[in-house]
Amino acid sequence: MGTGPTETRLGIIAAGGVLPRLVAEAARDAGLTPVIIAIADGLRQEWPGYCVVRLPWSKTGDVFSRLSEHGVSRVVFCGTISVRPDYRSMIPSLRTLRLMPELLRMVRGGDDSLLRAVAGLFERRGFEVVSVHSILRNVLTPLGTLTLQTPDKSDRLALQRASAAATEIGRLDIGQAVVASPDRIIAVEGIEGTRAMLERVGELRANGRIGRGEPCVLFKAFKPQQDERFDLPSIGTETIEQARAAGLRGIGLTPGRSLILEVGRVVDAADAKGLFVTGASAEEEGGAT
Amino acid sequence: MGTGPTETRLGIIAAGGVLPRLVAEAARDAGLTPVIIAIADGLRQEWPGYCVVRLPWSKTGDVFSRLSEHGVSRVVFCGTISVRPDYRSMIPSLRTLRLMPELLRMVRGGDDSLLRAVAGLFERRGFEVVSVHSILRNVLTPLGTLTLQTPDKSDRLALQRASAAATEIGRLDIGQAVVASPDRIIAVEGIEGTRAMLERVGELRANGRIGRGEPCVLFKAFKPQQDERFDLPSIGTETIEQARAAGLRGIGLTPGRSLILEVGRVVDAADAKGLFVTGASAEEEGGAT
Repeated sequence: MGTGPTETRLGIIAAGGVLPRLVAEAARDAGLTPVIIAIADGLRQEWPGYCVVRLPWSKTGDVFSRLSEHGVSRVVFCGTISVRPDYRSMIPSLRTLRLMPELLRMVRGGDDSLLRAVAGLFERRGFEVVSVHSILRNVLTPLGTLTLQTPDKSDRLALQRASAAATEIGRLDIGQAVVASPDRIIAVEGIEGTRAMLERVGELRANGRIGRGEPCVLFKAFKPQQDERFDLPSIGTETIEQARAAGLRGIGLTPGRSLILEVGRVVDAADAKGLFVTGASAEEEGGAT
Repeated sequence: MGTGPTETRLGIIAAGGVLPRLVAEAARDAGLTPVIIAIADGLRQEWPGYCVVRLPWSKTGDVFSRLSEHGVSRVVFCGTISVRPDYRSMIPSLRTLRLMPELLRMVRGGDDSLLRAVAGLFERRGFEVVSVHSILRNVLTPLGTLTLQTPDKSDRLALQRASAAATEIGRLDIGQAVVASPDRIIAVEGIEGTRAMLERVGELRANGRIGRGEPCVLFKAFKPQQDERFDLPSIGTETIEQARAAGLRGIGLTPGRSLILEVGRVVDAADAKGLFVTGASAEEEGGAT
């Protein structure tokens, strides 16, 4: 620790999934020195060759001093958090204890309010909070279709329906993802996440609740009120697998405000399965239903 | 068949669940003669002592002539339909074939648009379509709490949050039911139905995605735009069991526009489990969040 000028350090608050590693690699490629703060689902991950501090929830309050010790003044949040901290049932560190009133207020509310609150904690202590896509390039969904397969007329209707519903669901801070056919909404993402929702869609198809001829799509939408610096809707290669298993025709995402992780691999996987991946806004599709 | 004056006949278009039998019994008690048209999930049910015609989807088009043959001019729709007809894969009767363009248009769209379309088919042929609660008394949810357990302050916040979201979900013709805590939406009902959604909530609680101290409630809401004559949100004793298994504190329903089937048994079951059942509108709770 402590080599190189302070301003090239980047604190990566790293939860679960593949995203934190991609961000860390991109930071290095850009000449930055990543300091990984592993939390939540990210605690189990290995970080060979990286400077890493592991903080269980009970030590949440230590994050600011650890970052300062490492000379970090700029942070990025990334990765998934599936289980929220139950601060009532743990023995917190002294610093966590001092932070407790704020923490308890934070872990209430939807994802969006949680993340805003966390960013506020950092900013009030003088840290700069930057977005994933300011570090990781080529990750924002472009406008238009990326795959060989393109949405046909009924797919576009399904995308339009799903996009409009997902935007409303997001406005209510319920979730980001919806599965729809041209004619109806099939499933809405609550706290269970996209993977569990797609498994459910697969079951509904297997037991005949979705007709064989009913083309369905997944849409993941940017929440109208959300801070663009974190929790942008995202997909990766595993989403393609899950969408295929659910019998979907393809995936739509809000262009410019959602992430495709490892876009080359995602497009290859989608092409291999005959799925489309498209950046399609409700406006571009002709407005909400 | 054909005994008794025509005007006392009531056609009961009977899908699945306990509701059709309750309606049939109430009709008899009121001096009416029920003629049961068993469809969809209702095809498997026994109807000892009742005049019953079983119509698979392929014979949908025969329903009008069957009702006329039985001297029926007034009908009520009740029960659940879990699998929509796949008209493309069946050999329809001649009458169904003639109806096909209308049928294919009907089976598209959300539940609400499907039911409106079905009612329209009957009305254009001179049938009167009446509501379940015009036959079955004591079934509309009253305003206020029915159980020994009453919602406390945090339950009321959860009810308010769930009710506001369920109303929006209903406005989009997605579903009728939402599970929420005071602080966030947990699950939203798509086409999977309330039972499957509550099973999901139970799993989310079992694997720690819902905190032990996070009080959750189910709300089933009347859709703002829906026709009051059918598909009112409803609960029965099995909903109490499912809510209990999901670790919920209680259930809220739109007063005056939702059904509690066998209210005495439902209240007994809820009291035995320590759950509340309450008719609570968003307005009564102080408005949406």
